[in-house]
Amino acid sequence: MNSNTIGTAYCLTTFGESHGPAIGGVIDGCPAGVSLDKELIERELDKRRGGKNAAMSMRKEPDEVEFLSGLFEGKTTGTPIAFIIRNRDAKTSDYDNLKDVFRPSHGDFTYQEKYGIRDYAGGGRASARTLLPCVVAGAIARQILATQGIEVRSDVIQIGPERSEGFSTEEIENILTKYREEKDTVGAVIQGVIKNAPVGLGEPAFMKFNAVLAQAMMSINGAKGFEIGEGMHAAAMRGSDCNDPFTFESGKVRTLTNHSGGVQGGITNGEDIVFRVGFKPIPSVMRPQQTVDINGNAKVLEIQGRHDVCVVPRVIPMVEAMAAMVTLDFILLKKCNKI
Amino acid sequence: MNSNTIGTAYCLTTFGESHGPAIGGVIDGCPAGVSLDKELIERELDKRRGGKNAAMSMRKEPDEVEFLSGLFEGKTTGTPIAFIIRNRDAKTSDYDNLKDVFRPSHGDFTYQEKYGIRDYAGGGRASARTLLPCVVAGAIARQILATQGIEVRSDVIQIGPERSEGFSTEEIENILTKYREEKDTVGAVIQGVIKNAPVGLGEPAFMKFNAVLAQAMMSINGAKGFEIGEGMHAAAMRGSDCNDPFTFESGKVRTLTNHSGGVQGGITNGEDIVFRVGFKPIPSVMRPQQTVDINGNAKVLEIQGRHDVCVVPRVIPMVEAMAAMVTLDFILLKKCNKI
Amino acid sequence: MNSNTIGTAYCLTTFGESHGPAIGGVIDGCPAGVSLDKELIERELDKRRGGKNAAMSMRKEPDEVEFLSGLFEGKTTGTPIAFIIRNRDAKTSDYDNLKDVFRPSHGDFTYQEKYGIRDYAGGGRASARTLLPCVVAGAIARQILATQGIEVRSDVIQIGPERSEGFSTEEIENILTKYREEKDTVGAVIQGVIKNAPVGLGEPAFMKFNAVLAQAMMSINGAKGFEIGEGMHAAAMRGSDCNDPFTFESGKVRTLTNHSGGVQGGITNGEDIVFRVGFKPIPSVMRPQQTVDINGNAKVLEIQGRHDVCVVPRVIPMVEAMAAMVTLDFILLKKCNKI
Amino acid sequence: MNSNTIGTAYCLTTFGESHGPAIGGVIDGCPAGVSLDKELIERELDKRRGGKNAAMSMRKEPDEVEFLSGLFEGKTTGTPIAFIIRNRDAKTSDYDNLKDVFRPSHGDFTYQEKYGIRDYAGGGRASARTLLPCVVAGAIARQILATQGIEVRSDVIQIGPERSEGFSTEEIENILTKYREEKDTVGAVIQGVIKNAPVGLGEPAFMKFNAVLAQAMMSINGAKGFEIGEGMHAAAMRGSDCNDPFTFESGKVRTLTNHSGGVQGGITNGEDIVFRVGFKPIPSVMRPQQTVDINGNAKVLEIQGRHDVCVVPRVIPMVEAMAAMVTLDFILLKKCNKI
Repeated sequence: MNSNTIGTAYCLTTFGESHGPAIGGVIDGCPAGVSLDKELIERELDKRRGGKNAAMSMRKEPDEVEFLSGLFEGKTTGTPIAFIIRNRDAKTSDYDNLKDVFRPSHGDFTYQEKYGIRDYAGGGRASARTLLPCVVAGAIARQILATQGIEVRSDVIQIGPERSEGFSTEEIENILTKYREEKDTVGAVIQGVIKNAPVGLGEPAFMKFNAVLAQAMMSINGAKGFEIGEGMHAAAMRGSDCNDPFTFESGKVRTLTNHSGGVQGGITNGEDIVFRVGFKPIPSVMRPQQTVDINGNAKVLEIQGRHDVCVVPRVIPMVEAMAAMVTLDFILLKKCNKI
Repeated sequence: MNSNTIGTAYCLTTFGESHGPAIGGVIDGCPAGVSLDKELIERELDKRRGGKNAAMSMRKEPDEVEFLSGLFEGKTTGTPIAFIIRNRDAKTSDYDNLKDVFRPSHGDFTYQEKYGIRDYAGGGRASARTLLPCVVAGAIARQILATQGIEVRSDVIQIGPERSEGFSTEEIENILTKYREEKDTVGAVIQGVIKNAPVGLGEPAFMKFNAVLAQAMMSINGAKGFEIGEGMHAAAMRGSDCNDPFTFESGKVRTLTNHSGGVQGGITNGEDIVFRVGFKPIPSVMRPQQTVDINGNAKVLEIQGRHDVCVVPRVIPMVEAMAAMVTLDFILLKKCNKI
Repeated sequence: MNSNTIGTAYCLTTFGESHGPAIGGVIDGCPAGVSLDKELIERELDKRRGGKNAAMSMRKEPDEVEFLSGLFEGKTTGTPIAFIIRNRDAKTSDYDNLKDVFRPSHGDFTYQEKYGIRDYAGGGRASARTLLPCVVAGAIARQILATQGIEVRSDVIQIGPERSEGFSTEEIENILTKYREEKDTVGAVIQGVIKNAPVGLGEPAFMKFNAVLAQAMMSINGAKGFEIGEGMHAAAMRGSDCNDPFTFESGKVRTLTNHSGGVQGGITNGEDIVFRVGFKPIPSVMRPQQTVDINGNAKVLEIQGRHDVCVVPRVIPMVEAMAAMVTLDFILLKKCNKI
Repeated sequence: MNSNTIGTAYCLTTFGESHGPAIGGVIDGCPAGVSLDKELIERELDKRRGGKNAAMSMRKEPDEVEFLSGLFEGKTTGTPIAFIIRNRDAKTSDYDNLKDVFRPSHGDFTYQEKYGIRDYAGGGRASARTLLPCVVAGAIARQILATQGIEVRSDVIQIGPERSEGFSTEEIENILTKYREEKDTVGAVIQGVIKNAPVGLGEPAFMKFNAVLAQAMMSINGAKGFEIGEGMHAAAMRGSDCNDPFTFESGKVRTLTNHSGGVQGGITNGEDIVFRVGFKPIPSVMRPQQTVDINGNAKVLEIQGRHDVCVVPRVIPMVEAMAAMVTLDFILLKKCNKI
């Protein structure tokens, strides 16, 4: 039913399991005539892969993207752009101990019950690795947005209970190292900003910019909360504080404040689009956990191997990719508002 | 482009402006053979309409639903169920003073810019009144869910800075009266619970239960944040605290805690589905506000008439309706998982 | 599942049964700022309704369209345009004799089996009357197309075994009168032409212009065949006869012949788009017919009342409406091909 | 905009150009737990590839399918099934002479105009080779249908002006050899039959079984006409001849004749679903043709190399694949008709 497709005009269909032969995607609706910047794509993938740091598990896939279609002499042709990334060091046998047991707060149990069958290796389709194709499609979207002056950025603003306007890489590493040493994991909040998006993106009533962005962000593994502008905090505010007064500057209608986060009535107003996504801790903690197996027998699970401590920093390019795809999608859709 | 349609199997298309001839909806995909409980529908609409209370503006539409199709001798036939609700006391002229001015934090400016034209009466398509059709379609969904033992409930858990496990109607009235007297408005948080939903609802990768629910909730006017389970708070937690250990009870796999909010890997696990939606204050404050008109001239706006102080209590049946529609949709979709 | 919706960018959702309270539609995606020509809409509806002639049954609905939304001061606002047409002389009781019997080659049996329930009055949802909303949405599309110089026309080219380049109204009446006198009905072929459509309409691979047009035309009640360009006859041809040589005229690439019917590789080439739709005879013949009732008992059915003898002339505005909607849809979609 | 996706519940997204790195597809919505019969898939692909015969060009790809996802220990998991087929002997340089010239009645001109860029090698995305993924997805659908006793078959019933109830392979070869010797090509008609499909497939109003089947068939390269049951011939008939009387046999409602072709009111009635697709001659004739180049200069084109003379026999497995996919799709959708 196309549940693995995101977007209306700029559509990405993804496929693949963590330890299957390959993961990949098909982009349908990419405008023709764009010279793909493959370095930009590699750069975004590298961000997700990370270097050697405290937070990340050590899987060494080079994550090389092979483009299979939709390009001619380096340019998009308007036809579907398919690409794959091989899962090079996939070994299903490493996961035999997880075959019949449900890891707490993973998708093991729900996939098993839903489908009656499950690829248990590395989380299968439920692995965060399966979001890699979004990074690729997001990088292409980002490149197109850049030609229109639109930028997507994000920052880690919270890790565990600690908040900051801007963590340094070193601070992040230190925090994550602490949790790793305690054989535990931790959640985080990412704040994203889309700059210079035009007025008029988003479609009433159920494709409001914020609604579609929420769906995209909540599709990222581990996302438990989404906010735009003041977010949940808006509930605590008065209208007289939360409203954004209009003004007229340099020939444009602007707002003096941006509590709305760039979206009013579900449609962008030209201000920065500011949103946050809250992620739960990685569920693969290194401590013994109570669970059951596929037959309902109680088990104590001790997860082996090396796992990420936090969605940060890997999730950052994911959040930006989703934001870029959603923005480009609405830019294309907006073309149909007038004849 | 069908942006006014929500749902994949149980689809609602809505139409209508606040002060146009009528608002309404078309439900495509309602299973055949259901005896519609029209009293239930009226009851839900009445909840939205509210009685005489401090929080609500005084528009007196009876909100009578007229069904136009899809029913035969009171039963659904499997064909589209269309219904309309007339806007009985609609007078566009009451809004002439808003014709050329943009009310802060409403959709006035964004609609005007997007389409180059705008129905300014009562907010037009951007009015919360246009969500009424969702209440109707949600009530029908709720009735079908009830036959499967599934229930949808919600509570106000925060109004302005005040939080409570369960506000009484009187407490809510008192709080809202206070803000009304101060010519101000206030935000709120609603917590919803879907009880007894089966395991296996939600579809990977972009139609995760929580992602689709987020889109539905963020489509409600004034929604600025969405959370499932621990929500944004999950970011502050450790994995060892946030994970939900599995157990086996009365022949079922259950979790001992429910930090996940009933969804793991994007798919329901049989526990209560718990979510929250944060709403900003109603933007129509009774105080003078700085704004601009359609030509960019600075204006001081004084909104006339009587407006709601808070999305509570009107939004409550909306939240429940959206939750019911999403749940029924996934129940239908799940039928296709196996042959 | 939105099976009652046609179109991708210019979307029409229809609803209604022949003898229910009303039929109607919701157009989502109509460009903003169009001054609706309601006379054009009435004119198209009148064509479908026909005057007093030999071919048509005598139902006297005025087919008045009431617009409920999406218009402001006569112009489209970009929000959904809903409209209804009341079924004024609907009397379900007239059809009580058809309650339990399946009329041959109607949808009675298939609807009953599919849904377990069926609105038997006048064919219910399966009545050709339910296509009226397409005529309305098609007229709006046609009006927009006209602003771009695009025209949609059609001709009856066959009734029963008789073919003609252009039947006169009188000829048609005479033929139909003959069949009526014989208490029989007859099929027909309509040829449609879309003139001045731009090059580049249609999307690979499954939304080829001809494929989407075929779906639209085959959705019309009674359609049994669809052809584009040479159609089925192309099978009898040689490539050297069927190919359309290119030439260059007045600054444009043109073809010397138009065997392709204006579509090559699924995409329009700027030539006239020429297609044909073959319709079966109206199944309500006035002669005794062998059938069964809902319990499987053999019955001899004698259809009462007055019925059309042929889809001509009522179907003509339908064919044109569908063609107009499909063409406008692709014009909007084409905007997304380049950034 | 997902124009490269076919299906609603059983969805196939295709990608690839004739001479790009690979072609392939992603099947989203395949039921879980099916043991894929890879031999069946190979067999269908082999049919399309053909042996050494008069009709077909000599490209020697082994057409090996590599599955990349959605399978676990040979069974479908309910997640997207991606597969690729490498274009092994692709040499773009062979086509340099076609770079700037438009082959008559191919998609060269329309793609160039639509996108401003075009992969000219072997027809690029417009090549019939790009339909290979449909054969794969169709074979999987066919395997699932077989478990329900449903069969899809087809026959060549016309080549050029010659018709037959059943051509022998030898007859076909002789006819095609004749056209090849005359340096010409020829059209054909394929008749398909879907046997044992249940009553109730197809959804009103625009997803009638025949309408969706028409779209699928008209998506096949070279298709110019589609017919169901009596097809275009129905136009020549009287109602008293064309209607299918009902009878009751072995506990089932049946029809005595099958002029309807198994579909009434857009919904299958349990009889054989009989349809025909008319194909134009292959446009690559070996004779000099008048055309223009990309700058509008007149050219005489002499197509080199070896090309098919007719869509037969390669198109046969394509027609069956499309029919199988459409049928399975509606079987899944039907599950949602009742709760």
